[in-house]
Amino acid sequence: MSARVLREGRVRLWLEPEDRGLAYGDGVFETLLVHAGEPVWWQEHWQRLLRGAARLHLPLPDENEVRRECNAMLGGTGRAVLKIVLTRGSGGRGYAPPADALPTVVLSAHPAPEAPARGLHLRWARTTLATQPLLAGIKHLNRLEQVLARAEWDDADIDEALVCDSEDRVVSAIAANLFVLLGGRWLTPSVERCGVAGVAREWLLANLPGAAVAELSAAEVSHADAIFLCNSVRGILPVRRLGMREWPRDDLVAPPRALLAAAQPAFDQRGA
Amino acid sequence: MSARVLREGRVRLWLEPEDRGLAYGDGVFETLLVHAGEPVWWQEHWQRLLRGAARLHLPLPDENEVRRECNAMLGGTGRAVLKIVLTRGSGGRGYAPPADALPTVVLSAHPAPEAPARGLHLRWARTTLATQPLLAGIKHLNRLEQVLARAEWDDADIDEALVCDSEDRVVSAIAANLFVLLGGRWLTPSVERCGVAGVAREWLLANLPGAAVAELSAAEVSHADAIFLCNSVRGILPVRRLGMREWPRDDLVAPPRALLAAAQPAFDQRGA
Repeated sequence: MSARVLREGRVRLWLEPEDRGLAYGDGVFETLLVHAGEPVWWQEHWQRLLRGAARLHLPLPDENEVRRECNAMLGGTGRAVLKIVLTRGSGGRGYAPPADALPTVVLSAHPAPEAPARGLHLRWARTTLATQPLLAGIKHLNRLEQVLARAEWDDADIDEALVCDSEDRVVSAIAANLFVLLGGRWLTPSVERCGVAGVAREWLLANLPGAAVAELSAAEVSHADAIFLCNSVRGILPVRRLGMREWPRDDLVAPPRALLAAAQPAFDQRGA
Repeated sequence: MSARVLREGRVRLWLEPEDRGLAYGDGVFETLLVHAGEPVWWQEHWQRLLRGAARLHLPLPDENEVRRECNAMLGGTGRAVLKIVLTRGSGGRGYAPPADALPTVVLSAHPAPEAPARGLHLRWARTTLATQPLLAGIKHLNRLEQVLARAEWDDADIDEALVCDSEDRVVSAIAANLFVLLGGRWLTPSVERCGVAGVAREWLLANLPGAAVAELSAAEVSHADAIFLCNSVRGILPVRRLGMREWPRDDLVAPPRALLAAAQPAFDQRGA
């Protein structure tokens, strides 16, 4: 992994210990797939970063500077994962956001994940997500619920978990959004009370025929004709198993995967 | 402000950009008053740090090493604020907590706050706190709700705000706990659904005659005979005004202040 920190026009390899990203999780982040040396869905990620920053009233970095440093860090790497963290910068002690805050941007590059050899095995998380409309939808840095949900198992045969809110509505997986085929339509839960509006989810809602937002119970998800997870690093991942329920074939997930692969060659890989 | 970072047995002035404290707010913190060169309520703070770390399954730092570095950083400073942040350390990308995580400890010293010249002026926060029993009570690093609540005003005449949960129960101030005198007893809200179990609050619940935990509505707080805020940096702070309600005299808050000052000379200052 390599990392660099953009701060007050300089590039560094370290973070100031008084950064508000550490103190309060006062920031947002994006995780992008890099394919053929180019970040995939850059504009969509940058726009979501700006939406999150606007919600939190964060100071904004210069897009060209960030893009330039991303390219410099990636240095022609063909396939990788690029993470961009934006924080309110350094700000002493106390919750009050400094009026003259300058943004900190932390960039890091990571190996791209392997394409899974089979459909995913999922479990239900016991951890539930709190309802907080002020923070819902954006990809902020307050992620302890996800850390707790992911810490519930260390069985290597389980790939991911589905999480519900405190009123038993299904929200998403821990690090991916969820689509469920019910009555011939692909449905995905709302992210207005909690959860993240993933870039892949937004693309599918706009481009997958009949895709829609719907309230979903655990029983409805278990009884769906097919389900898949999606995020902008791994694309569409068919689910093979959820608790005791099994979907032995992936063929119903093939059309959305083909649609995505046609639009974004980065996702045109078996299982990627 | 000065800061130092303890990591893998070394002392540094900078933080690794891949620290999980930044990535996910994956950690806890304590804020202590330093008086006559000594951290006040060290044991109580250290025990709460351990309770928070246990809840999140964080790796533990060595108490003696942390205490030694605190002393070295403070260097005989008479009065100051000491902040201790504990994170799960560095951990690549992904929510799964590394099995072999090593803790990061960030220490910083800040000027002690001035004693306010008058009773506090409070407002009601529009931001409400989400209900999340898994994180309630501990002083974790996911503090965006507090940042949003504090960003609601920049009128220098307002000192703090009271926050409610999503079901209109009063929880606390943004950076302090709340005690309310009702029917001759000092009552403080529960922190089992959200909020922080402050060290000063715990001390008062154990030592202030008749003090108890109770469910409180905004109307009950507004109609109380007296109210005060408390935290372990500022001790007990009488409230003069809350929205339209005014408590012109501090005399009902004098007995708990005298009790605290007798037990902890650090808080034996008019208005401190």
